[in-house]
Amino acid sequence: MSSFDLESFLRDQVARVEGLLRVRVEEMAPEVPPRLLESMRYSLLAGGKRLRPVLCLSFSDAVARASVASRVAEDAACALEFIHTYSLVHDDLPSMDDDDLRRGRPTNHKVYGEALATLAGDALLTDAFALVAGGPEPVRRLLCRELAMGAGSAGMVGGQVLDIAEDRPAHIDYLTRMHRMKTGALIRAACRMGALAGGGDEETLARADTYGDSVGLAFQIADDVLDVTATAEEMGKPVGADAAAGRFTFPAVLGLEASKELAARKVAEAIAAVEPLEGENGPLAALARYAVERHS
Amino acid sequence: MSSFDLESFLRDQVARVEGLLRVRVEEMAPEVPPRLLESMRYSLLAGGKRLRPVLCLSFSDAVARASVASRVAEDAACALEFIHTYSLVHDDLPSMDDDDLRRGRPTNHKVYGEALATLAGDALLTDAFALVAGGPEPVRRLLCRELAMGAGSAGMVGGQVLDIAEDRPAHIDYLTRMHRMKTGALIRAACRMGALAGGGDEETLARADTYGDSVGLAFQIADDVLDVTATAEEMGKPVGADAAAGRFTFPAVLGLEASKELAARKVAEAIAAVEPLEGENGPLAALARYAVERHS
Repeated sequence: MSSFDLESFLRDQVARVEGLLRVRVEEMAPEVPPRLLESMRYSLLAGGKRLRPVLCLSFSDAVARASVASRVAEDAACALEFIHTYSLVHDDLPSMDDDDLRRGRPTNHKVYGEALATLAGDALLTDAFALVAGGPEPVRRLLCRELAMGAGSAGMVGGQVLDIAEDRPAHIDYLTRMHRMKTGALIRAACRMGALAGGGDEETLARADTYGDSVGLAFQIADDVLDVTATAEEMGKPVGADAAAGRFTFPAVLGLEASKELAARKVAEAIAAVEPLEGENGPLAALARYAVERHS
Repeated sequence: MSSFDLESFLRDQVARVEGLLRVRVEEMAPEVPPRLLESMRYSLLAGGKRLRPVLCLSFSDAVARASVASRVAEDAACALEFIHTYSLVHDDLPSMDDDDLRRGRPTNHKVYGEALATLAGDALLTDAFALVAGGPEPVRRLLCRELAMGAGSAGMVGGQVLDIAEDRPAHIDYLTRMHRMKTGALIRAACRMGALAGGGDEETLARADTYGDSVGLAFQIADDVLDVTATAEEMGKPVGADAAAGRFTFPAVLGLEASKELAARKVAEAIAAVEPLEGENGPLAALARYAVERHS
């Protein structure tokens, strides 16, 4: 079977998303206080994998079977990155993770202060909905709903609260629920929004849902596995030390081998879900594999 | 002319809004981590004038000429209060106004900590859009758009950034622009959303716009005037002391009498705008008068 050229696909898609984000920010510029816009732009245009917008555009393309995605899909893709960016800005705040650096650059509040960083996050979050609701197409109401459900109290923000809880039980059910909400819900929303923007029917939406749920979980498990194996290799200490230290990860709770197997099973489920949409060796299958292999 | 019984109208409307908010929060409960829901509920159900939802419902009632507002108008009204509440929670944070008390109770972060208060604000903001986009009516897309424009970087959040700027010029244009964005934009959105939910046409929407803009500005001028007159009476010092201290208020910039005149003119403009909608002595005219008289 021929191998899909993911590297060149990602290069093109990321460039496309960067271009779209720049245009959207430019369009907002006349109405927004310059200092606020600068702070929003600082974090929004700081690079990154752009996984959520790429998933959204890829689903839209797969469903609509057109290489030119609609303005609807593009607005949805940008909105997803606005939401993801706000969550990083707020996560980095001193009262949250208190991080000074992100991707090698000072975090937003280190450059603009805590007050403006908080407000820039609030603005990115709110403006995401202005983007999605900004055109005449009726499907945009559904997209607003998906975005709000994925990002809100029963989705991403709810998962963050589960993550900072002091009494979180070291149990696979809690760990899975936390990640399904914290990172999974927005990834699932990205897939569903792409399917909706592409005009997908109920069955397509269900496939996007399965794919997003599986990829989101596989993505997180792979992160945890890598933390453990990197530690074991680099620091020469046994993996068991992490579990003993009570680290709240899949390897700590399930063991390393079972975690790897779970991630592989989730990737297989994701690929099976999209096979009827894109055939064999399409970009979505490649993206699912990439979710667990990206750091290796 | 017979006088509209605003007191009894407000009592009924506020009770109605309180009831709606409680139902919406109950409906969310099964999906949301309990600690997050508690923090959201703490600030959401802490009382207050409920001005924005009351304006929204009043416009919807005036336009639809029905005493039973639709589910659309009610969701919009609740969403406006979600947004207003999140803005108060974030405003009170140590990095912003650093307030310990609001309406005589400890602020959200004093009870739940800064991290959860930040996340509860984010959740209220996001869930507002889930409420508005949650039903099948096509007008909900327009409501999402109005809410995002009123609350986002070119509206409320933008105004907050203008307010915390260190180099803000003591000029009437800057002061007016700041308040139009910081409090006016969401009040205008409340009126426009009510008009849209009630099925209003373009002309009605323009009237809601004028009314919201005028009432929002009159509301803020009255706040500033009261600060000055209360100070002058209670502290026995001349009003000029506030202006000399460089306080960024309408009396400081325009003078006390000119400020009072401007507020009165704005109220008159608001009342004129809605007269064709509700006739003489309707609730919207009474609410406009209340905006400048509420503390006296």
